Amino acid sequence: MNKKIVNIGVLGCGTVGSSFINNLISKQKIIKKTTGIELNILKVFDKDKYKLERYKNFAVKNPEEIINDENIDIVVELIGGIDYAYEFIMKSIEKRKSIVTANKYLLSKYGEEIFKKAKEKKVYIGFEGSVAGAIPVIKVLKESFMGNKITKILGILNGTTNFILSEMFYKGINFKEGLGMAKKFGYAEANPHLDISGYDTAHKILVLSWITWGHLFSVEKISVEGIDKIEPIDINFASELGYRIKLLGIGKKENNQIEIRVHPVLLPRTHLLSLVEGVNNAVYIEGDLIGKSLFYGEGAGGNAASSSVISDVIDISKKIISKEYIEENFLSEKKLNLKPFDEIETKYYFRFTAIDKPGVLAKISKILGDNNISILSVIQKQDNPQKAVPIIMLTHKAKEKNVKKAISLIDKLDVIKNPTIIIRLEEELM
Amino acid sequence: MNKKIVNIGVLGCGTVGSSFINNLISKQKIIKKTTGIELNILKVFDKDKYKLERYKNFAVKNPEEIINDENIDIVVELIGGIDYAYEFIMKSIEKRKSIVTANKYLLSKYGEEIFKKAKEKKVYIGFEGSVAGAIPVIKVLKESFMGNKITKILGILNGTTNFILSEMFYKGINFKEGLGMAKKFGYAEANPHLDISGYDTAHKILVLSWITWGHLFSVEKISVEGIDKIEPIDINFASELGYRIKLLGIGKKENNQIEIRVHPVLLPRTHLLSLVEGVNNAVYIEGDLIGKSLFYGEGAGGNAASSSVISDVIDISKKIISKEYIEENFLSEKKLNLKPFDEIETKYYFRFTAIDKPGVLAKISKILGDNNISILSVIQKQDNPQKAVPIIMLTHKAKEKNVKKAISLIDKLDVIKNPTIIIRLEEELM
Repeated sequence: MNKKIVNIGVLGCGTVGSSFINNLISKQKIIKKTTGIELNILKVFDKDKYKLERYKNFAVKNPEEIINDENIDIVVELIGGIDYAYEFIMKSIEKRKSIVTANKYLLSKYGEEIFKKAKEKKVYIGFEGSVAGAIPVIKVLKESFMGNKITKILGILNGTTNFILSEMFYKGINFKEGLGMAKKFGYAEANPHLDISGYDTAHKILVLSWITWGHLFSVEKISVEGIDKIEPIDINFASELGYRIKLLGIGKKENNQIEIRVHPVLLPRTHLLSLVEGVNNAVYIEGDLIGKSLFYGEGAGGNAASSSVISDVIDISKKIISKEYIEENFLSEKKLNLKPFDEIETKYYFRFTAIDKPGVLAKISKILGDNNISILSVIQKQDNPQKAVPIIMLTHKAKEKNVKKAISLIDKLDVIKNPTIIIRLEEELM
Repeated sequence: MNKKIVNIGVLGCGTVGSSFINNLISKQKIIKKTTGIELNILKVFDKDKYKLERYKNFAVKNPEEIINDENIDIVVELIGGIDYAYEFIMKSIEKRKSIVTANKYLLSKYGEEIFKKAKEKKVYIGFEGSVAGAIPVIKVLKESFMGNKITKILGILNGTTNFILSEMFYKGINFKEGLGMAKKFGYAEANPHLDISGYDTAHKILVLSWITWGHLFSVEKISVEGIDKIEPIDINFASELGYRIKLLGIGKKENNQIEIRVHPVLLPRTHLLSLVEGVNNAVYIEGDLIGKSLFYGEGAGGNAASSSVISDVIDISKKIISKEYIEENFLSEKKLNLKPFDEIETKYYFRFTAIDKPGVLAKISKILGDNNISILSVIQKQDNPQKAVPIIMLTHKAKEKNVKKAISLIDKLDVIKNPTIIIRLEEELM
């Protein structure tokens, strides 16, 4: 038997990078004992000299020293962002190195291109760490559920927003206060836009949809909504109706149509997803053989992500050593279309802000009825007849297009004082 | 590139076997498209002629025709039970065939021997279908969480007993009626002993502990308790206290000590495991990098299990094609000891059946105190002073040995009318 040694270069030693390096070194022996493979970190690069200083034995001043090192088999890219990461990864593949990355942003944009080049050069790409931290959802979808036709993926994929929504629910605070708490605990970046806008979730659901259904759709083509418009009053009314509000990445397949969207959702309190609190993540998956399944775990933090990065490194090392290249294809059986957002059908939660006088409900209901939207239940609480009051409505399934039209008409009524709040429902029963 | 064809022989075409055969055939094309590998079923055997008749093109009259066929690469063993399965598997390995099996009973008994022989012959063993149906917990523990020190595994691993406990909770029926419902819906075998006694769960937690911590302990050495002593009154009191009763397989590691046990458990209502209803399964796993994670899915049924069997077949096919044999070892870092059940420490739920007269609680409390068991809370409801009434107690952490001693003394008191019911608590907060 040949000596089984795999050499690794690491680009980026921030939170995830340093956690990966430290954990891999401390677990090197047990990994060798169980797999027979010796994993060596040869070189580490970071543009930040202070971070790099902690790894004096491995530190290199230039990423090219890793990319061009013939002894390095796997490049672990943990610098994040788009530009440099893309350049380094493509150059490394060109030099016949396999890649492990946790970069969902990059993958959602250049995933297909990167995979094409990897196949050409007969190297491997691992990206378990890119979605849902420690939860091995990539492997589950790519390998464990391979015999399935997957029909639905619902994910709480962003720890920051889930933490904020949990804080709002438990402490009765508003979005801004929730965001403040997230920053205080280090769960939100200095610029948390990518998280709260829903775009981080979007990158992740695009990656999951890609590996599941075989086509990587562009983020510009899907509807993405964040949590900044959620108010405590909606969280309370949702709770009264038996729901929790969560930000979900949603992927569905019906025939050759794929539906991908990101927005806050009312989830029944009895659904396992609605119990996922704080920075935790969870992914709910439905398929023809598996039925309904759910995977829950820590969505953020260096250790959680490095657990996934380590498992990718081990998997790819086994493949490198086995020599015969096994192609990996994410293929769709047929050509897939992205369902226009206006065509989706779901139940809705509306919060109207209306003057409390007779006939208001009749006016609203008339417009809804005219647009084929049928009402499931209404909560209207006596408040101050002088002031505008909230009217809460749940609907039966309706078409997004009709809802937009109806709400734009309703919001023009002189009895309506604020733009109506629209939150979609998701009612999978487990 | 060589032609990538892997040939399969199937032993047993009952529920899981026939589901596997049908699903593999219908998914053959898409598997070939994504992996490049052609999976062919060459031969099928079952001792039941009527079952076998459905697969005329593949049917063979004798298992030896599969075991001795040089063209067959993987033998899928789905006959279950111990004796024949063991014989066929060992013979197949001898003939250098890889094995896929869903047989937890067999693995919990002969797993180490089977793996030793497989390594000797350089073949592979897949057993994802043996634990928790469609949930890929074997792969998660063996591959995804490889970089972790796993400290805790708690599993709802038996669909039948979980279904019965769910029925008892929701319908207020007793164990016998619950079992009757399970039989009616086809969720219980004609002889459900292995399920309700907890032994099926025991085989599964032994397999999970083995692949996680590297030692396969014998079922005779662990404490196994079923659900037949659970009464509606306990389910109700548990609910009043904020708990659900579930049958868990429990594996824990602390230093070099492993704790493995199976018994009903009071779980906080807020724990994700307590929301797993009906025939579903779930496994909760804790590790140093991943933190807390949970995997939920269908635990029973042909489709669920065949999803796992198919993924094993694909994984092993990739390995077979890659030629270089990659050893698989489940190793412990150090020698492990099984913690004696008497030494475990946990919180307890007691239900005493006592005559309702002054001084009873004092007598019980005295004995508990003398044995270092400290009371957390008591429920005693006024009922009929003539009759025996239930007294419910939750304790702080206590030692099993002390509990057994105290309860045996308490049960001898003349004010105690029935043997005391003891249920252990498990309070992991997520």
